Amino acid sequence: MEKLDKLYEGKAKKLYATDDPDVLWVEYMNQATAGNGAKKAQIDGKGSLNNRITSVIFDLLKARGVDSHFIDHISDTEQLVRRMDMYPLEIIMRNTAAGSFAQRYGVEEGTELKKPILEFCVKDDDLGDPFINDDGIVALGLASEDELAEISRQARAVNDALKDIFSKIDVQLVDFKIEEGKTSDGTILLADEITPDTCRLWDLKDGSGQIEHLDKDLFRRDLGNIIPAYEEILDRLTALANEEGVELR
Amino acid sequence: MEKLDKLYEGKAKKLYATDDPDVLWVEYMNQATAGNGAKKAQIDGKGSLNNRITSVIFDLLKARGVDSHFIDHISDTEQLVRRMDMYPLEIIMRNTAAGSFAQRYGVEEGTELKKPILEFCVKDDDLGDPFINDDGIVALGLASEDELAEISRQARAVNDALKDIFSKIDVQLVDFKIEEGKTSDGTILLADEITPDTCRLWDLKDGSGQIEHLDKDLFRRDLGNIIPAYEEILDRLTALANEEGVELR
Repeated sequence: MEKLDKLYEGKAKKLYATDDPDVLWVEYMNQATAGNGAKKAQIDGKGSLNNRITSVIFDLLKARGVDSHFIDHISDTEQLVRRMDMYPLEIIMRNTAAGSFAQRYGVEEGTELKKPILEFCVKDDDLGDPFINDDGIVALGLASEDELAEISRQARAVNDALKDIFSKIDVQLVDFKIEEGKTSDGTILLADEITPDTCRLWDLKDGSGQIEHLDKDLFRRDLGNIIPAYEEILDRLTALANEEGVELR
Repeated sequence: MEKLDKLYEGKAKKLYATDDPDVLWVEYMNQATAGNGAKKAQIDGKGSLNNRITSVIFDLLKARGVDSHFIDHISDTEQLVRRMDMYPLEIIMRNTAAGSFAQRYGVEEGTELKKPILEFCVKDDDLGDPFINDDGIVALGLASEDELAEISRQARAVNDALKDIFSKIDVQLVDFKIEEGKTSDGTILLADEITPDTCRLWDLKDGSGQIEHLDKDLFRRDLGNIIPAYEEILDRLTALANEEGVELR
């Protein structure tokens, strides 16, 4: 596999074409951002950890019947994924009130929700990634009615599988963000990454009654160094994969 | 019917109890507000016009099989309505992009939508009436799954009937806001008002290609006096009711 032109540079990853038109080369960067890029830092080791964490999670998901764009972990900071046309949507699942949801509705962070909430935002930095509902997505042509139904079904399936994974490593899955795309043969698939950058993960081992963040809120809220937390997540996930006999790519 | 204690004073109406526990006495005020009350004015004649307009609309809706809380128009500025437990929701239907929707998604005002959009906001001035989706409404307990389905069905039925009404008087129904409540016997019903305060209405008679507002945007955007526009809407609606033989309460 040959790495060709850079196609895209996001806040945490660079994407390159390869000599296979259906495969992309992803490079995880050490950059951390928050508040739509308003806060920014270089954190040594973050790219490598997230590259490893998302690979293990994609493997654990696959073992639970949830497929994704992930093909192979090829170096410390690089992986290969299936090339897709991405839906311009941030797909958010919430199990517990936190972050922008808690603020928006005046609900205390940590409040359990009566049901998991699936939310969409339009992926558009200039517009501040505005919240949108199902009718809006279809009316603006961001996805068809059928595509949206499939994306929603997959998001809920990812949530069910992730809740199972994280509960087994004593972590509360508060909320997370994914993205979805469509391959050249029309298959809708989970894409992007699943890491402590894109999930809120609270440690249940702590037992102090205080929220112990194992996620990017440590950076967003200046609560401490993210690296030991991300290492802890990776260690527990790897132990789970070994325990379950899941072969890591 | 006896008018008793004032129960509530909103931005445009006062509500009073009556000697019938299932009936409220509504008084339409001359106050106009915009931007969640940031802009405010007294406009002579507005209360009387809106009291008349919403009464005629509720009668035209009833003739189309869409019931509401409206009981009777009893004076220039007063009407009787059924008393209900209100859902804390602003229910918005959009046929054409305008206002906050156009701004939020960077869409030009006047863009036709691929399908009508039903949106909900939590009715909470302190939180700025935040946008919420169906999952959020159920998860926060603002309505049950079944109640939300019925509210949504009614909102779409109101839109279909209103589009028919306004197209017959050469007015484009761009968007509107309603509220819904539940009577003491558990019936979910359309409530609040339907007036040029709560609808975006564009004149199709103008034919200039310019948007000719017949609604509160005249006040919100300092485009002119609302009274002649509201009178025009009332005249056309009354003529339609006469033409259709709809008896006005």
